Amino acid sequence: MVATTACQDQPKVASDGNALLEHPNLVSTAKGMALIKNNLGKYPLIDHSIQDMKGDVDAEILKAKDFPIPKDPSGGYTHEKHKRNYLTMYRAGMLFQVLGDAKYGNYVKDMLLGYAELIPTLGLHPNGKSYSPGKLFWQGLNDAMWLIHVAQAYDCVYYLFTDEERARVKQNVLKNMGDFLSVGSPKMFNRVHNHGIWLNAAVGLTGYVLKDDVLIKRALYGAEIDKTLETFKTVDYNDPALKGFDENRPAGYYMQLDNLFSPDGFFTEGPYYQRFSIWPFMLMAQAIENNDPSIKIFEYRDAILKKALYTALQLSYTDGAFFPFNDALKGMDFTSPELTLALDIVYQNYDEDPQLLDVAIKQNQVVFSEGGFKVAKHVSENKAIPFTWKSINLGDGADGKQGGVAILRSGPSSDQLCQIMRYTSHGLAHGHYDKLGQALYDNGNEILQDYGASRWVAVITKRGGRYLPENTTWAKQTIAHNTLVVDEKSQFNGDINVSSKYHSELYFYDDSQDTHQVISAKENNAYPGIQMHRTFAMITDSRLLKPFVLDIFNIKSDLKHQLDLPFHYKGEIMNITFDHKVMTNQLQPLGDKNGYQHLWLLGKGKTKDAQAKFTWLNDGRFYTITTIADSNTEFLLCRLGANDPEFNLRPDPSFIIRQKAAKNHTFVSIVEPHGSKSLTREIVTNPYGSIKTLEIVYQDANYIAVDVLVDTEKLKVILALNDNDSEKEHDLIIADKSYQWQGPFMKVFQSE
Amino acid sequence: MVATTACQDQPKVASDGNALLEHPNLVSTAKGMALIKNNLGKYPLIDHSIQDMKGDVDAEILKAKDFPIPKDPSGGYTHEKHKRNYLTMYRAGMLFQVLGDAKYGNYVKDMLLGYAELIPTLGLHPNGKSYSPGKLFWQGLNDAMWLIHVAQAYDCVYYLFTDEERARVKQNVLKNMGDFLSVGSPKMFNRVHNHGIWLNAAVGLTGYVLKDDVLIKRALYGAEIDKTLETFKTVDYNDPALKGFDENRPAGYYMQLDNLFSPDGFFTEGPYYQRFSIWPFMLMAQAIENNDPSIKIFEYRDAILKKALYTALQLSYTDGAFFPFNDALKGMDFTSPELTLALDIVYQNYDEDPQLLDVAIKQNQVVFSEGGFKVAKHVSENKAIPFTWKSINLGDGADGKQGGVAILRSGPSSDQLCQIMRYTSHGLAHGHYDKLGQALYDNGNEILQDYGASRWVAVITKRGGRYLPENTTWAKQTIAHNTLVVDEKSQFNGDINVSSKYHSELYFYDDSQDTHQVISAKENNAYPGIQMHRTFAMITDSRLLKPFVLDIFNIKSDLKHQLDLPFHYKGEIMNITFDHKVMTNQLQPLGDKNGYQHLWLLGKGKTKDAQAKFTWLNDGRFYTITTIADSNTEFLLCRLGANDPEFNLRPDPSFIIRQKAAKNHTFVSIVEPHGSKSLTREIVTNPYGSIKTLEIVYQDANYIAVDVLVDTEKLKVILALNDNDSEKEHDLIIADKSYQWQGPFMKVFQSE
Repeated sequence: MVATTACQDQPKVASDGNALLEHPNLVSTAKGMALIKNNLGKYPLIDHSIQDMKGDVDAEILKAKDFPIPKDPSGGYTHEKHKRNYLTMYRAGMLFQVLGDAKYGNYVKDMLLGYAELIPTLGLHPNGKSYSPGKLFWQGLNDAMWLIHVAQAYDCVYYLFTDEERARVKQNVLKNMGDFLSVGSPKMFNRVHNHGIWLNAAVGLTGYVLKDDVLIKRALYGAEIDKTLETFKTVDYNDPALKGFDENRPAGYYMQLDNLFSPDGFFTEGPYYQRFSIWPFMLMAQAIENNDPSIKIFEYRDAILKKALYTALQLSYTDGAFFPFNDALKGMDFTSPELTLALDIVYQNYDEDPQLLDVAIKQNQVVFSEGGFKVAKHVSENKAIPFTWKSINLGDGADGKQGGVAILRSGPSSDQLCQIMRYTSHGLAHGHYDKLGQALYDNGNEILQDYGASRWVAVITKRGGRYLPENTTWAKQTIAHNTLVVDEKSQFNGDINVSSKYHSELYFYDDSQDTHQVISAKENNAYPGIQMHRTFAMITDSRLLKPFVLDIFNIKSDLKHQLDLPFHYKGEIMNITFDHKVMTNQLQPLGDKNGYQHLWLLGKGKTKDAQAKFTWLNDGRFYTITTIADSNTEFLLCRLGANDPEFNLRPDPSFIIRQKAAKNHTFVSIVEPHGSKSLTREIVTNPYGSIKTLEIVYQDANYIAVDVLVDTEKLKVILALNDNDSEKEHDLIIADKSYQWQGPFMKVFQSE
Repeated sequence: MVATTACQDQPKVASDGNALLEHPNLVSTAKGMALIKNNLGKYPLIDHSIQDMKGDVDAEILKAKDFPIPKDPSGGYTHEKHKRNYLTMYRAGMLFQVLGDAKYGNYVKDMLLGYAELIPTLGLHPNGKSYSPGKLFWQGLNDAMWLIHVAQAYDCVYYLFTDEERARVKQNVLKNMGDFLSVGSPKMFNRVHNHGIWLNAAVGLTGYVLKDDVLIKRALYGAEIDKTLETFKTVDYNDPALKGFDENRPAGYYMQLDNLFSPDGFFTEGPYYQRFSIWPFMLMAQAIENNDPSIKIFEYRDAILKKALYTALQLSYTDGAFFPFNDALKGMDFTSPELTLALDIVYQNYDEDPQLLDVAIKQNQVVFSEGGFKVAKHVSENKAIPFTWKSINLGDGADGKQGGVAILRSGPSSDQLCQIMRYTSHGLAHGHYDKLGQALYDNGNEILQDYGASRWVAVITKRGGRYLPENTTWAKQTIAHNTLVVDEKSQFNGDINVSSKYHSELYFYDDSQDTHQVISAKENNAYPGIQMHRTFAMITDSRLLKPFVLDIFNIKSDLKHQLDLPFHYKGEIMNITFDHKVMTNQLQPLGDKNGYQHLWLLGKGKTKDAQAKFTWLNDGRFYTITTIADSNTEFLLCRLGANDPEFNLRPDPSFIIRQKAAKNHTFVSIVEPHGSKSLTREIVTNPYGSIKTLEIVYQDANYIAVDVLVDTEKLKVILALNDNDSEKEHDLIIADKSYQWQGPFMKVFQSE
């Protein structure tokens, strides 16, 4: 799967025999820049992007130039200044190209000459992270981002330098940093990981802009290909940070393309990092395409780059916010600069999908490239059609067989019920212990949330913007997720080395039915001796006022355990049907470790009824969990915030169903959106919901059957537990009535 | 101030001598309906309003008609059904008029005939509130809302009845309810209060639609004018509920107009109830105008109805949400049906202010009247200009001299800093103990919040939608507000009878300066022996990166007290500069009564520095409180939720500055918006803020002077404490330097 053609060294020649402008020719090309320059004032997306950049750049270039000696971590002055510098250089370079105003070009030129003084004087960052320190920043990752921007800025002002100046910038800035980030940072450069791709792309862009074949080959195939360089010999191939690196095969861009995405275009670290890494992937691809189109990089691996974008888009709710599983900061969405760039590149190099224009309108930005130009032009020509989110099941891992994640959706984008189940592999260092975890969205909102990460990126007062201690003690722990916790321990006992060996197994996925969609998966390694099997059925039958989700979570164990199933609901409690006691005058943590130490116990309850209901209000709509209960069932109401000395945790609530001493147990629950409450009209409808009763009517080793009374409709669901063959004929007698069906799941309304 | 002309009994005659259609002729007229009917498809606001109504009505009229025997309180079936019935009757009546579809008219007719069977059988509601039970609903207020809608629905289908049917509906429904709500409910009918105006208007509209002069006169002048009626003799004039009623002068609509609004159009109960009561005020006014234009009701009391609307609009933040002081539910905004009606009526009867069209666009609705038609037409003709929120100082009380509320604003509607100070009278039964309380908005968000009310209107599971116990134990208490609490007691010891006797006093208000705006007021009755004087200066000088608010709160007392000044901030803690201890493993309430029992104490701190800083993040912007501290100052961090057995409270945070044993003390604080954090770009600016130091540099009985270092700018503020004469010349020497200025407030930058 490795391409063979190296980069070109010669200027391109046009059909009329004249040499074409060679620069810029990375992501933005001279042709793309000319298109934009000649069409100013025509396309609002371009004009808006220019204005946006101008606002930033015009303010910044008035300030005294500063190249501080690197000292601070993220959020500190030297970090933020060098970050601001590279962003401004990049933007000024772009503005110079499209507006032709010399002040922008000269700014970039002067900045590069300034860095040509600074960089050769630098050793490693004094606050560097041990694994991969940078020179300008605390981690080499930031240096790579710096270099990616600077290479493009240099590309834009290439002709402004004298030969001597250009040679100085080339040697002291670009070659210096290109070498540092490749052979000088081999652990990170050769790692199959989002950090690795940033370094590969930075070195690759630098190689292309310098026409330096050594840098290009390193970027494409890995740093080992010039092993003769002394620095490279320091690599310790036994270092766990190099996990996934095989010294017998090339590293570099192709290796990242081969391994970081599943065949579905799913990035194992999750959407937040998929968004982050798609940027260097796409930048490098466009630079390859512009400089060596014979490689046909956009066709590589069955058009994996296209899949990476579409999958990223599908990993968002209908507001464009990415699902925040694994380490992920909430609020990150598909209007981010990374997705803007990726969209413009995909639009240019594939089939000009008009759905992408709908996303571009929300991005309200384009990059200055041929793709960005086309997107802006086509948006102005009203070619956009609505982007469609759809139900999807995505395989994880390079082979797509390391578990996965399923997203079930029902309803229009304006009001969509969306159920997620994770049954992935661990997700590298940013993974959480959340096998068979769920999240639920509805009506534009998070209803059952994934907490995401505990971090305020770039906020210096929050530990320099780093991941916070509570990211480990809470956010990664199993109790922080909507999935089973056994004996108050996290899955795999919270050991990434164990967790990384396993993934959950898909049992079946079916989104082909109008009346229901189902995802079912099993996990047998998270807790020794315990088999977990969870099934979500989104029931969308037209008999219903609103669709709902049935959750059958079957646990098999030879020994007795305490089983906790949390629901991290968002909203205000409206109704509790079970008897409960509220801790009114004193709060204590629910436990003392594995995340439990962070939960204040607000109340607990039990019920003598066969089911319990818990109702909350979120943004004018009610949600009710109805769950089957018995005398061993306890209900816990909690709020996050205990043992949080720096106030790093959000004070979010949770509802936990606890089965106190259970061997085999099946949690059967329905989460149901219902009714409405208008704030301005003060009218309330259906505050109790439609689920009247919920009952297990049959259970053996092979089947479980559940009856649900929905208003006046009786619904029966049968799940085959040990045969996922969709062709298999089943026959089961329940209460003297015979049921026949095909495949692992059956649903029937009595009125059918 | 009482008009003399009674209603007309005769059909109107046009200039050509032909009789005009008499019905509808309440709020909607035959002329207005014809305009709409003849222009369908032209004006999106009308078409959208029709579609919206049709959606509701078409679904509802398919259902079996039901007239349940009244039984349930708010949120229960019979309550919600009768509410749904009147809304549907009203809407179907409107649709019948503008679409001419007989199914809508016949629905209304059948419903009215159904109610003609039910109503004569009814006594008082079995779950009626003791003070003012209804027949159909638990409180007569809801019956009045029912009748207001039904009178208009009847007006729309008047010609569909046979004479016998019409007589039956007239007698059994309209006259029956009109009598019940006037002479049958004298306590409420004659009360100067938002409940009273609803009953007055309901009876008035009924009178006009029936051409019943007795009902009309009751509505305009009060129920006593037909004292001979037996039921009326049961009134006990010593009943406190009749407070404000003088048996020697008329009650009714005019009395409400004279007393409920201040000359500025401010409604003493606050914006939430101003919104609620403006509806009957406007309905009645339009009905008077349509039936007896010689009264010139819209000119009454210097056009008080117009002022009432504009003041309601100004009592909102730039998203249209009303400031939630006193009992108020958050989320209520100027797109409510009440404000839509009021706006359309004001637009019709005053000067067609194009700013109102901007609000109408956000309402996305019009009423079916001549006014609604004009609004929709003019919006389509692009006549709207942006609505402008402005700084304003509103007097409270019928004479405008019972204290007031000031709103200082800076910046465009897209990002406006907005400071509110309350120095009003109590605000009747819906008032809170919040004298000299503040609230702060910025960047589209609540920054320092007023909690509002504890209630979920119409949610039956929350005590039938009533005000919750925590509304009294928390929401009304002083500690729930951003103002001084002495010795952990609420102002006036939480006694409404005492509080209602007093109001705070304006010291001065000045919004005339470009560089600063100031509100200053005094309160000497809230705590015996304690004089409170608070001044907010919004500093908007162009030297500043961003405007900020300086808060000088001067307290004089002969005895030592504990002084608590809470800041109910909204957001996530980013930085705390003072030493503090966090309660990590156990929480207890801050106190045991007066609202303190509801606050969990999360942490406490002290500082040896001359000031302390507390920074939080709200929606991508930082906010810092900088406050002067000494060795007696303690800082408390709290979260709401203790002693809340029904989970009725929001878990909102607060920061409390406590001066432990103080006689005379001045709290000097700055609340400062600063910097930014982008979620999708992950860039942070200015996380520490610009206020470097804050210091009292002079203080005596007559003056206080404060120095502020803002980045590198030194600012001096001097406040004269005992002379609010704006012409007065002051001369003061501070640190050997002489300062001369005019008026109670001086501000100077050292660089000036």
